[in-house]
Amino acid sequence: MSALPRALAAQLAALLDEGFLEDPAERLAYAYDNSRRQALPDAVALPRTRAQVLELVRACRRHRVPVIARGRGTNTTGATVPVAGGVVVSFERMARILDIRPGDRCAVVEPGLLNGALQDALTPHGLFWPPDPTSAGFSTVGGNLACNAGGPRAVKYGASRDNVLALTAVTGAGELVTCGSATTKGATGYDLQRLLVGSEGTLALIVEATLRLVPRPTARRALRAVYRDVASAAHAVARLMAQPVTPSMLEFMDHHAVRLAREVGGADLPADAGALLMIEADGEAHALDAAADALARAAAGDGLLALDAAPDEAARERLWAARKALSPALRTLAPGKINEDVVVPVSRIPSLVDGVQAIARETGLPIVCFGHAGNGNLHVNILYEPADGAQCAQAETALARVFALTVSLGGTLSGEHGIGLAKRDFMPQAIDAATLALMRQVKQVFDPDGILNPGKLLP
Amino acid sequence: MSALPRALAAQLAALLDEGFLEDPAERLAYAYDNSRRQALPDAVALPRTRAQVLELVRACRRHRVPVIARGRGTNTTGATVPVAGGVVVSFERMARILDIRPGDRCAVVEPGLLNGALQDALTPHGLFWPPDPTSAGFSTVGGNLACNAGGPRAVKYGASRDNVLALTAVTGAGELVTCGSATTKGATGYDLQRLLVGSEGTLALIVEATLRLVPRPTARRALRAVYRDVASAAHAVARLMAQPVTPSMLEFMDHHAVRLAREVGGADLPADAGALLMIEADGEAHALDAAADALARAAAGDGLLALDAAPDEAARERLWAARKALSPALRTLAPGKINEDVVVPVSRIPSLVDGVQAIARETGLPIVCFGHAGNGNLHVNILYEPADGAQCAQAETALARVFALTVSLGGTLSGEHGIGLAKRDFMPQAIDAATLALMRQVKQVFDPDGILNPGKLLP
Repeated sequence: MSALPRALAAQLAALLDEGFLEDPAERLAYAYDNSRRQALPDAVALPRTRAQVLELVRACRRHRVPVIARGRGTNTTGATVPVAGGVVVSFERMARILDIRPGDRCAVVEPGLLNGALQDALTPHGLFWPPDPTSAGFSTVGGNLACNAGGPRAVKYGASRDNVLALTAVTGAGELVTCGSATTKGATGYDLQRLLVGSEGTLALIVEATLRLVPRPTARRALRAVYRDVASAAHAVARLMAQPVTPSMLEFMDHHAVRLAREVGGADLPADAGALLMIEADGEAHALDAAADALARAAAGDGLLALDAAPDEAARERLWAARKALSPALRTLAPGKINEDVVVPVSRIPSLVDGVQAIARETGLPIVCFGHAGNGNLHVNILYEPADGAQCAQAETALARVFALTVSLGGTLSGEHGIGLAKRDFMPQAIDAATLALMRQVKQVFDPDGILNPGKLLP
Repeated sequence: MSALPRALAAQLAALLDEGFLEDPAERLAYAYDNSRRQALPDAVALPRTRAQVLELVRACRRHRVPVIARGRGTNTTGATVPVAGGVVVSFERMARILDIRPGDRCAVVEPGLLNGALQDALTPHGLFWPPDPTSAGFSTVGGNLACNAGGPRAVKYGASRDNVLALTAVTGAGELVTCGSATTKGATGYDLQRLLVGSEGTLALIVEATLRLVPRPTARRALRAVYRDVASAAHAVARLMAQPVTPSMLEFMDHHAVRLAREVGGADLPADAGALLMIEADGEAHALDAAADALARAAAGDGLLALDAAPDEAARERLWAARKALSPALRTLAPGKINEDVVVPVSRIPSLVDGVQAIARETGLPIVCFGHAGNGNLHVNILYEPADGAQCAQAETALARVFALTVSLGGTLSGEHGIGLAKRDFMPQAIDAATLALMRQVKQVFDPDGILNPGKLLP
């Protein structure tokens, strides 16, 4: 039996029938996320309708019981871990595609729909939804929206916030609100839908989303550019982003990442490679030669050691092997990994990578940088031995210094993972006191009793 | 002498020196906007620094005196008309470009900068800022942001809200806040900068904007497609928007507009033309043949009467002549014009145009539709005789019915002009009571005493 007030438990059981879980073994499956943090919820709700969500939030509000929205728990920040107990609302039974409207370039979906299932359903229409987090096969649209998920193709197509037209949501006050309209332009009052995107379930629970879709390119072309050093690669990134053909992916690997991919992953890369860019163009087949030429011209410059083009999909897979070999290879350095996704203006990538390497030297820990260079969004991987208390402390020190460095370069804490628990206490470094106070007041408007995902995002 | 409390007037005069205007003749120049509404402000402030704006707002708040931000008054909704008196803050002396950073694809500017002056400064860098309202030559970046201005190329590049990275602003509470960062991705707390865009000066005064820039295409190609009727043209719009080459402009004219352009404007158009699309592609010169071919294929279909391509800029100008002839030609129908910019899902354009023509028949007034078809954002022009009281009343009836029709089609009141005074009282038709109440609470957080642009946007 859970710690919920019995009147509330009885009301929710009657409301949700077998979609209300109180058994500790069942609750355990909803206690953690990909942050490896864990806290047992008092109950789990599996609503099937927005009316159930509305009644649930109102009931929980009356009892001042926390409500934590959950997709599939793939987020890395602890944002779905119920640290204050309460009811986890999992949207796995609200996972329908309600409408696909190719002529309007939009789809209407429930929040529990998997990103990958949506993409599959859109393929016959020649459309896709731009957000492509690595987790796309097993993360939900609602979860993607909650943390403003991106992915490699955000450099051309934007992240979740750039690809939502309208949201229906239940606020912490227990009100059903409809924000935005199914139109690609709008100047009718305050833009509340983009405010909800990235708010990590602290303002409202999304119960329906109208998503902006984009025509699916019919072909793509990959290039792999190897550079002498990080600075040469970073200058190439700036050149690539300043010319008219925006790449559909522009991924970066620093010298540690390149070495790991070569030595551990077996990727075919020159021994003197100090940095690597994976560059892709997409579009219609007949226009791709010109696009790939434009990208190759921009990639060329001082410090370029090798430029390989993939003429077909098989060759593309071989070029991407270096990137795919990387994550498993990281584990050979140390079993513990802190992976943050800081973001800086593109021109500051060299300063970020240099500064991170200085932090690595001073803390004695390996730190490997790779990620979405076209957005300045680098994944900084701090590797350490979790059984070694001194290394754990050094890793925390390194993390704090990485955040301070990022902010000093005009960047911010997260590009696509969000804040959750992991970065909450660093928020005052990134956001000034007056703006943070304003965010707290906005939270208070949407969630007057503070029942939605307490302890997350705001320090 | 103005009606301001003398202590406040003295404080503002000391703060702003010759940038504080109380002479009625000088105030008159700040009393109106392009809505043709008018109301004399009690004073006009011309600040040069954000510190002055901050002190001004704090002083006005202490005296509960309204503060109305103003660019150049080109907006059509009355949003800058000081209907409750108070101090108009014109940003004409805060018009500097603070930084252009081509490698980061961003520019940092003050709000009073003219859109056109920004574009001129960006041209040597091969970059542009996407919003391109017709007023671009004489409207400000701050004003564009305040009403989420768009323009023809929004169909490919988005409107103002899609092209802002960070804003520094003074809230109605007299706090300086910094929202967002100069990065193209961000998942660090609540997105307050996009909330400020389109808020029409009711939440905060923008004192600095970091704008997202886009590489300037090196070439463009225009097509003019003439259709038998509106339905054929609307189906072509849906086909054009569903294929991978997104047009850089996709403008629509209904049968009235086509007839006016031909008969009054002298445009070379077939007599049986029932609708017209102006279609453009942009990009690199070597890729444009393929792009124009793709657009021509999508434009072709049932009801297409003629498809003309412009091989060069001179031919493009000739094709655009039909569109440019239109606005002056409208005045030949009647001297009075209500021009609203409703937006519907693209697939509902035929229903909108049909419904509008039914309203025209029933009210006995000519109504002409044209505008940004790729976004479903049509300018609905209701023409009437202002000296005729019955026609004025019919025009108001027609307007209310156009809004009701738009909302019934899943659309909303404004795509790019905003709400201001003109559409404020229609807000409850477009936005449900709970959501409108939430907007009011958000307003309360940013502007607790309701001093910022009172009477606008919210009913």
